[in-house]
Amino acid sequence: MAYELYYWPEIQGRGEFVRLALEEAAAPYVDVARMRGGVKRMTSMMDDRRATRPPFAPPFLKAGKLVIAQTANILMFLGERHRLAPRDDAGRLFTHQLQLTIADVVAEVHDTHHPVAASLYYEDQKAEARRKAADVTAHRLPKYLGYFERVLANNPRGTWLVGARPTYADLSLFQLMEGLRYAFPKAMKRIARRHPHVMAARDAVAARPRIVAYLASPRRIAFNEQGIFRHYAELDK
Amino acid sequence: MAYELYYWPEIQGRGEFVRLALEEAAAPYVDVARMRGGVKRMTSMMDDRRATRPPFAPPFLKAGKLVIAQTANILMFLGERHRLAPRDDAGRLFTHQLQLTIADVVAEVHDTHHPVAASLYYEDQKAEARRKAADVTAHRLPKYLGYFERVLANNPRGTWLVGARPTYADLSLFQLMEGLRYAFPKAMKRIARRHPHVMAARDAVAARPRIVAYLASPRRIAFNEQGIFRHYAELDK
Repeated sequence: MAYELYYWPEIQGRGEFVRLALEEAAAPYVDVARMRGGVKRMTSMMDDRRATRPPFAPPFLKAGKLVIAQTANILMFLGERHRLAPRDDAGRLFTHQLQLTIADVVAEVHDTHHPVAASLYYEDQKAEARRKAADVTAHRLPKYLGYFERVLANNPRGTWLVGARPTYADLSLFQLMEGLRYAFPKAMKRIARRHPHVMAARDAVAARPRIVAYLASPRRIAFNEQGIFRHYAELDK
Repeated sequence: MAYELYYWPEIQGRGEFVRLALEEAAAPYVDVARMRGGVKRMTSMMDDRRATRPPFAPPFLKAGKLVIAQTANILMFLGERHRLAPRDDAGRLFTHQLQLTIADVVAEVHDTHHPVAASLYYEDQKAEARRKAADVTAHRLPKYLGYFERVLANNPRGTWLVGARPTYADLSLFQLMEGLRYAFPKAMKRIARRHPHVMAARDAVAARPRIVAYLASPRRIAFNEQGIFRHYAELDK
């Protein structure tokens, strides 16, 4: 039975981390909200007042009777089912730790354009956004990417973050790098040079046959200024 | 063998979610950084350039040879080991989803006093903080707590978030409520009234014998203005 992915249809957003895992696993799935009437189906699942285990927000994944929300949680589930994470405790927990750290970066990057409130327009928090983006590009990204660089450089098994095979955390690191390079091309030109292992892992994901096919397909939504990674020239000095 | 918890010694912070789980489980643990030389031991584990699986930030937990970082990840591990989460897939994943949602609230609450940069003083981002706190107390907290209220009200098994027994997510919801009431006493007086199931779950955790003993012990650090939940009267209108 095909998985059902529920996520906003017009952005990559957090749903993209799930899409990449489904694509790499060659798992059949329906991107529900991109079909006719799908957004309504999605919001009615979230708003169901009688649901015993409702999702708080998209993305969420329906797998048979299971409904799983929170990006990192969905990825953990898919990792267990589709060999996108080691099975031993140490490897499984470290992969999830890396994913949660990537989620922290993603939240900080979102806040570069929405430091005051997600419900306000960017235009209404531009001054704050400029200060936030300056801190994130100058301090936070080098700190986070320096950490991933160290993990990759010290993995005795090679290219990937954990062990000898790609995990969902590698797919997410790829997406993070794509998003950062879209949002902050100038800053990332400087930063990427100093993180050769991160760039090599990003390139290795980009070369996976199923990822190549996915990125070239209409299933991959283009980056835009409604998503998490937005390009505003004034935030990229 | 006792667990070793590594976290900043002078605040509850994110470490507190782990402490509550260890205490409820009656699991022996050493709060390493609160002992002589402990902070240095903690930072040298984070800074070890040769470590293959280093933590990015505290809290982290040493369990024999395992070193586990990221609060929700540590709690998942403790939940599996100490019956602080259901064992079936649906219950296990839903508990983790709730924890990750609580982590999202915690991050937003942190940003009410540090919307621009964690590395700057509160005094240097007071104007931004006022705007952020207004949005969080008016919109975000009711949205999040309304969600937890619904989950609790719809649980056919009673008091707790998932199933018939308390999980690590219940302990974390307790801590969240304690922190919010410390930081925003005025706003929370209004908000708490509308979330009777959340308050009942909070009270049920507070009445657990091991939690009672812990809260009265010197192991419980008091809330203060260095932690995540800070009381600044100007942010609580």
